[in-house]
Amino acid sequence: MTVRQSYDLELEELRLSLLEMGRRVSTAIDDAVGALAQQRMDLAQKVIESDDLIDQMEIDIEDKCMVLIARQQPMARDLRIIGTGLKITTDLERMGDHAYDIAKITLSLGNQPLLKPLVDIPRMAQKAQNMLKAALTAYINLDINLAEEVCLADDGVDHLYNQVFRELLTFMMEDPRKITQATQLLFVARYLERIADHITNIAEWTIYLVTGQRRRKK
Amino acid sequence: MTVRQSYDLELEELRLSLLEMGRRVSTAIDDAVGALAQQRMDLAQKVIESDDLIDQMEIDIEDKCMVLIARQQPMARDLRIIGTGLKITTDLERMGDHAYDIAKITLSLGNQPLLKPLVDIPRMAQKAQNMLKAALTAYINLDINLAEEVCLADDGVDHLYNQVFRELLTFMMEDPRKITQATQLLFVARYLERIADHITNIAEWTIYLVTGQRRRKK
Repeated sequence: MTVRQSYDLELEELRLSLLEMGRRVSTAIDDAVGALAQQRMDLAQKVIESDDLIDQMEIDIEDKCMVLIARQQPMARDLRIIGTGLKITTDLERMGDHAYDIAKITLSLGNQPLLKPLVDIPRMAQKAQNMLKAALTAYINLDINLAEEVCLADDGVDHLYNQVFRELLTFMMEDPRKITQATQLLFVARYLERIADHITNIAEWTIYLVTGQRRRKK
Repeated sequence: MTVRQSYDLELEELRLSLLEMGRRVSTAIDDAVGALAQQRMDLAQKVIESDDLIDQMEIDIEDKCMVLIARQQPMARDLRIIGTGLKITTDLERMGDHAYDIAKITLSLGNQPLLKPLVDIPRMAQKAQNMLKAALTAYINLDINLAEEVCLADDGVDHLYNQVFRELLTFMMEDPRKITQATQLLFVARYLERIADHITNIAEWTIYLVTGQRRRKK
């Protein structure tokens, strides 16, 4: 194997380790929202415990990026693979933190009756999961059309967030005893909205990786 | 000037541009909380407009890091300067986003009377500003003792956040007409708490820059 081939292999391994981290984060989000909706404390606890692993994956990926930079003098797309690797791992780690935050809220709510069966929050989570799946596929296949679709899908999550926000405010106004729980659920919705923002970042980094062009934020 | 000297100069310029970005973000936070407390819509508008500049600074710093990597084959501390540069600029940009979020809330509240004169939220902002100033000084002077102090100071902000949170919940329960505004202020407090987390990250990156050792998060 030539030096170049071996380097290409390492860059490919870097991309695959980001995919693996993305899948872990996806599971954490799924478990966190599932635990909340079904009030499963064991599952929330699992999410909290898995956060250390996600944090460690970020550190490992960063170290791998640093080694790749130090070993070779990467240029053009090689350099963009490493640079976007450093950025995407930050977004994924932050998403993992939000899953952790949601699991903490689930534990603090405990087994108190929910305001109502949760519908829109799991729908937000489902939309975010679809976005994440597409963003990771776009990243691995370097598919900028799919990445563009992910960016557009973010509006759907924002729309649901606004709906959830208004509904929770209404609950609070109707019954002050519901305020504490509704506030917690408001945060959950906000975390999911932020998770979708991070997924949009991943899609934007993919577009940069392929084209070398930056999209303007907002 | 030797190639090495010229490279050192560029690394130093990178660090100074992070300091400059940090100062802009500091001003944005200051203005955002000032605008909220004094209900100054013009100042909130200024924060919103300044966010584009902060986003552009992040892009410029990232590009500078990429060029520095491509130009030389950085090793050891040089590499850590660039790697931490990429990370710190992300934290600063996120802090700028939170200043933007606070300014948006100020505009949405408009001139409606505040629940009460804001005291603890500006105190949180002041603590965060002190942390940021220390974190930037520690970064520029490579002062790990000061960086450690910044990490410890984060608890003070968390403590204030919990206090503000409880107080706002009480307001909501006492008077449902206050719920909408109290919810907005709850988000402001949360953004400030997150800003302090990002500042803690900067201090942790400084420790890594100097020592090569990672601190475990949380």
